[in-house]
Amino acid sequence: MASDLSGYFDVASTAPLHPVARQALTAALDEGWADPARLYRSGRQARMLLDAARETVAEAIGARADEVAFTTSGTQAVQLGMLGALRGRRRVGRHLLHSAVEHSCVLHTADRHRAEGGEVDVVPVDRGGRVRVEAFTARPDTALAVLQSANHEVGTVQPVAEVAERCGGVPLLVDAAQSVGRLPVPAGWSLLTASAHKWGGPAGVGVLAVRKGVRFASALPADEREGGRVPGYVNVPAIVAAAASLRAVRAEAEAENARLHALVERIRARVPRLVPEVEVVGDPVRRLPHLVTFSCLYVDGEVLLSELDRAGFAVSSGSSCTASTLTPSHVLAAMGVLTEGNVRVSLPYGAPESAVDRFLTVLPELVAQVRAPLGLDLPAPAPAERELVIDALGKRCPLPVIELAKRIGEVPPGGLVVVLSDDEAARLDIPAWCEMRGEEYAGHAPAADYGADRGVAYLVRRRP
Amino acid sequence: MASDLSGYFDVASTAPLHPVARQALTAALDEGWADPARLYRSGRQARMLLDAARETVAEAIGARADEVAFTTSGTQAVQLGMLGALRGRRRVGRHLLHSAVEHSCVLHTADRHRAEGGEVDVVPVDRGGRVRVEAFTARPDTALAVLQSANHEVGTVQPVAEVAERCGGVPLLVDAAQSVGRLPVPAGWSLLTASAHKWGGPAGVGVLAVRKGVRFASALPADEREGGRVPGYVNVPAIVAAAASLRAVRAEAEAENARLHALVERIRARVPRLVPEVEVVGDPVRRLPHLVTFSCLYVDGEVLLSELDRAGFAVSSGSSCTASTLTPSHVLAAMGVLTEGNVRVSLPYGAPESAVDRFLTVLPELVAQVRAPLGLDLPAPAPAERELVIDALGKRCPLPVIELAKRIGEVPPGGLVVVLSDDEAARLDIPAWCEMRGEEYAGHAPAADYGADRGVAYLVRRRP
Repeated sequence: MASDLSGYFDVASTAPLHPVARQALTAALDEGWADPARLYRSGRQARMLLDAARETVAEAIGARADEVAFTTSGTQAVQLGMLGALRGRRRVGRHLLHSAVEHSCVLHTADRHRAEGGEVDVVPVDRGGRVRVEAFTARPDTALAVLQSANHEVGTVQPVAEVAERCGGVPLLVDAAQSVGRLPVPAGWSLLTASAHKWGGPAGVGVLAVRKGVRFASALPADEREGGRVPGYVNVPAIVAAAASLRAVRAEAEAENARLHALVERIRARVPRLVPEVEVVGDPVRRLPHLVTFSCLYVDGEVLLSELDRAGFAVSSGSSCTASTLTPSHVLAAMGVLTEGNVRVSLPYGAPESAVDRFLTVLPELVAQVRAPLGLDLPAPAPAERELVIDALGKRCPLPVIELAKRIGEVPPGGLVVVLSDDEAARLDIPAWCEMRGEEYAGHAPAADYGADRGVAYLVRRRP
Repeated sequence: MASDLSGYFDVASTAPLHPVARQALTAALDEGWADPARLYRSGRQARMLLDAARETVAEAIGARADEVAFTTSGTQAVQLGMLGALRGRRRVGRHLLHSAVEHSCVLHTADRHRAEGGEVDVVPVDRGGRVRVEAFTARPDTALAVLQSANHEVGTVQPVAEVAERCGGVPLLVDAAQSVGRLPVPAGWSLLTASAHKWGGPAGVGVLAVRKGVRFASALPADEREGGRVPGYVNVPAIVAAAASLRAVRAEAEAENARLHALVERIRARVPRLVPEVEVVGDPVRRLPHLVTFSCLYVDGEVLLSELDRAGFAVSSGSSCTASTLTPSHVLAAMGVLTEGNVRVSLPYGAPESAVDRFLTVLPELVAQVRAPLGLDLPAPAPAERELVIDALGKRCPLPVIELAKRIGEVPPGGLVVVLSDDEAARLDIPAWCEMRGEEYAGHAPAADYGADRGVAYLVRRRP
């Protein structure tokens, strides 16, 4: 990469191209450049590469290859998927259900459906952004239900399998743009959509999978490409690169997810201690490993973004698809949380720990600077309500673990316990205890973050 | 390129990636990978590259930058362009006009329009594939007229400016996929569509230009991208590469067009002399420089394509978008010409003369071989009716030119005169005479093609 990417914290918008994707793209521009619909050698070769890429993607999402069509973006996948299912099931009815926190492309498509005489119900979410399963109620005339796998703004993972079960025979379209390549694909989808540039593939490749047996009628005039679901010339080199990248990120996912999960936990825990009047939003436990959002009272999001940019950090604010207009996010509004001074941090694979720490150093200064002209007298930042710090410094094993076991009940489910310890054994014992007890080990942070002059802060999230 | 491309004669399907496009793509993957809708540095940089690419394309097609939107394919450009104009002008009426020889994506979109209650009139073409201008008649309720700049199967250039004038106030969508980058964009369009992979850009980039003042309402749910005309994430690196390639091919166009025009003329002239019972189709004069189509009686197109493939030649047959199914071409059917054993040759920039000559050597053998099992007694191939060979061997300047001037009236307009000469001066004199007289100099061929043992065959096409 030509520029320094260490402060690029906006992977939920687009991921930098994975090195494997770049190699595959270069190779496929040589080997797969011809029209895969042609019968001559170079055409057949492109077709073989396309077939192999389709197999890779199908395997990754738990589909059959003939259920997978490639689109040219995640948005196109959602639009053609929703409109195709609504059109295919028109005889059943014209009722559409979706959660209140879907990507704007779902909302736009629902608006269009409504404008053309369809009926739309929007299912509310809780304060953590999690859809209310009991409100996801299909009717006899429901043609389609839509739910994301995880929210793109606050990282909350949705209860897809439960909603799918509740939907019964109604097809559920799962917009998995934020999770494919990172997390297992949830069970229960009838249509699944994804976007390659979110997982380190090139732009220009989306995925639309439709389970066998789901009625589907193309919203656009169909041609012979992509099983009649996505018209237009097929971009084989980009698709090959997208599939290669998907394989690569899936191989890295377990290790990188754990690492990024701990870095995000550090941001979640520290920001409320470093910045006064801040709210970290989204479900603290059932969340994407790499994404965290917080809102700073009395702060103009655009100004803060621009200050962070100057300091070398690329982050997003408000709704990921309306950030260019900076209108308040419909996601935050639906959750009923603060939308002011909103910052979304989404860490790419390989994001350096040092950059996260630098972000945590820079952020409080910049927020203070932005707030300075307001002449406010803000209270000093306080630890979050749902957080407990156990000072086990100087105590030898097994005392830190015993303290932890005794006191974890003091935080509510989803709350955070921070164990400060300078005993090296804690490094192994605390994660092992979490594993045994089914609590979530959320990584470690410098003890200095919690005011200690030595040792390490071990973070444990109480299971809900 | 990894494989030998010298026999790749199917640029009308897709062009090999131009070296300039490849360089630009590599650079833009570094510099323009971020989301151009974002406000941070890498986003702004992507936006600047996108803006510059838009300026380049706008300049090439004679549009303002804000009239140009990027799509993800030529087909998408046509579909969104047609549907957007039909939707935007719904109050005017629902009548659609298009020529009988448009690309299948136009026909598919017209079918959809008809299925949804619209009315469609199909304008016939002459035997050369040229639309009948006098039949291109708009009505008060005509919402849109559609005409290609040049035909993708037979290369006939359409009278766009005349049709535009005839359409009066009705917007004309010009599908310029086969000509942008090669020929000047015709005057009179209201909407213009193109496809980057036809001019050596990468796959995944189309162009939809809409003149200011033309009513347009997006057929798909719109977002904030591409002026609300094309929803979904914008593929900046591919667009940058497409624009770079367009600049490069336009710079080469004049020289390459002349060279390819002569090579195609050689194919047009020689095939009927080498292969019995063959018909070269398409307008011999008002044609794309690089494309020629002929049909061989008693031959199965698929078998011939596969034999040519084995011999190292990649060509197309029938309709370029239905070649995978090998159904008879609607273009050839509308022209009323032979569809059997159809071969389309479309030469990429840089196609070597030697490969064309090898093609002309191999073709007659392969056709004969394919026909052999039929046990036909075919007449020896004869020179085309509209062709005159003047033997000026041994005659010194200015005698060859005088012969030419005297006898060109013997062929009908559009007919070919072949002057065999071994006087070096003819090489300059014959083109100069053509220039002066307004006849078309169509290049030269080996005199051996015309049975001579020495000299050069100079080809002159009589202007219609």
